Amino acid sequence: MINQLVKEITNKKAPIVVGLDPMLSYVPEFIRKKAFEEYGETLEGAGEAIWQYNKGIVDAVSDLIPAVKPQIAMYEQFGVPGLVAYQKTVDYCKEKGLVVIGDIKRGDIGSTSKAYAIGHVGKTVVGSKTYSGFNEDFVTVNPYLGSDGVQPFIDVCKETKKGIFVLVKTSNPSSGEFQDQKIDGIPLYELVGKKVAQWGESFMGDSYSYVGAVVGATYPEMGKVLRKLMPKTYILVPGYGAQGGKAEDLVHYFNKDGLGAIVNSSRGIICAYQQEKYASYGETAYADASRQAVIDMRDDIMGALVGK
Amino acid sequence: MINQLVKEITNKKAPIVVGLDPMLSYVPEFIRKKAFEEYGETLEGAGEAIWQYNKGIVDAVSDLIPAVKPQIAMYEQFGVPGLVAYQKTVDYCKEKGLVVIGDIKRGDIGSTSKAYAIGHVGKTVVGSKTYSGFNEDFVTVNPYLGSDGVQPFIDVCKETKKGIFVLVKTSNPSSGEFQDQKIDGIPLYELVGKKVAQWGESFMGDSYSYVGAVVGATYPEMGKVLRKLMPKTYILVPGYGAQGGKAEDLVHYFNKDGLGAIVNSSRGIICAYQQEKYASYGETAYADASRQAVIDMRDDIMGALVGK
Repeated sequence: MINQLVKEITNKKAPIVVGLDPMLSYVPEFIRKKAFEEYGETLEGAGEAIWQYNKGIVDAVSDLIPAVKPQIAMYEQFGVPGLVAYQKTVDYCKEKGLVVIGDIKRGDIGSTSKAYAIGHVGKTVVGSKTYSGFNEDFVTVNPYLGSDGVQPFIDVCKETKKGIFVLVKTSNPSSGEFQDQKIDGIPLYELVGKKVAQWGESFMGDSYSYVGAVVGATYPEMGKVLRKLMPKTYILVPGYGAQGGKAEDLVHYFNKDGLGAIVNSSRGIICAYQQEKYASYGETAYADASRQAVIDMRDDIMGALVGK
Repeated sequence: MINQLVKEITNKKAPIVVGLDPMLSYVPEFIRKKAFEEYGETLEGAGEAIWQYNKGIVDAVSDLIPAVKPQIAMYEQFGVPGLVAYQKTVDYCKEKGLVVIGDIKRGDIGSTSKAYAIGHVGKTVVGSKTYSGFNEDFVTVNPYLGSDGVQPFIDVCKETKKGIFVLVKTSNPSSGEFQDQKIDGIPLYELVGKKVAQWGESFMGDSYSYVGAVVGATYPEMGKVLRKLMPKTYILVPGYGAQGGKAEDLVHYFNKDGLGAIVNSSRGIICAYQQEKYASYGETAYADASRQAVIDMRDDIMGALVGK
């Protein structure tokens, strides 16, 4: 799957991923109205609304991008019906040939991590049958529990040729509270980064590892250090756009081969129609606004990479 | 909710919580068979089997215990139908008057943590209506992202009078890999513990905070230190029994009032019938075996506390 991700990034000349993180307030009125007419103002209605909203965006942008990253929390907030919408979104994106990175940030003790891994990137055995629960291609993993919390994800992915992105340095303002703490002069995120590189060595694709890392766009100096520390690790970079990360800062997350990083934007793309810049599209053409925002993001980042 | 938890622990003289972490291999043949006859060897069949299995255990032990802790990963491994079983389990335990601690170990950047909090311990607004997604009483939270990843849970809980348990020192063998790293001579888990105490000060129940901590039974010396560092924090203690934690080690997790900790056992209780000690119950009386295992666990821990 890492080889496919690299191939799609290269073919589409777009090291970008669209974060499908729908809030009900993002969904245009006409979609919400139709969903509520059909299912009422219920959790099912909310699930239907965000699924139809996603579908419109995916249809409009899938030829431009290699991957999507649905944030499961945005679906989980609507309980089971929200997770039905998550599943529909994952399945539909895969049908469209997109690589799906499930942003689930799971992580637990060994046997429990294994259950998460099975549910999202593995196979579940029921009697004599085998099923995939959610069936993403990659998932994000929280490293706080250490190797035996991460290893089960790697073990399961080795069977299915899928991959993970481990949180190393997150994009949020208070990420430094624990992640930047220095241990013998070395910040925790570097220690985690070294582990990620180490875990990754045992599970290599053609040029990059199936074990990737999450490093926020909002901390470019740290991104620079981590890039060198984890040369064979694909870096998933959240925080571009709405959270403040800029294209010129992102060049440090890439290797000299022009690869090694994939930049996420969520609100900046899926909510483009609510921004002044794309307001002329209006609500009904919200997906076209998202398409233009993808093109602008791609050009912004590719432009910065050319100038590197 | 923390006041109710303390009240139930006191009334039932049982500072214990039963971990509802079902694997299909734990479920007695007669339950599996019936579920598969009804739903086939499908994810729905698996969900039905674990739900019926849970129901049997809950019916047999609910008068003895204050709380249950379903581990969501064990349900998530079966995709959406597994999460339907999780929801049924949560709802049923609440009907039975049990406090439900959702072991979800979520944690993300601010707006995303808020979505998780809303889905599990808050209220979701859909049009003019308000719903609860999963509706647990407490959830476990991963602190790796720092304050702005934890605070949204606290904010949501303040509205619903629910609570959280933040991972401080987990019970697994490699938890020390990052959690024990020393920062200016102080291990990371102590730094996190101090933060938990600080977060908790702003959200107090009658005698304990709504912000609790997870500290594994497998590290009693660290438990002793953390107990002193977080005097008003309820400690959720996994790792008793199957993972190796012993009752005499657990006394250090309690305060002098005999309160302040609640000890979890999962496999040791729900799989009791598969242990040699309880084998005479047989598969059909699996729930009675679980009841006896609860009584034995309670007596073991209360005995150690009396001798403290």
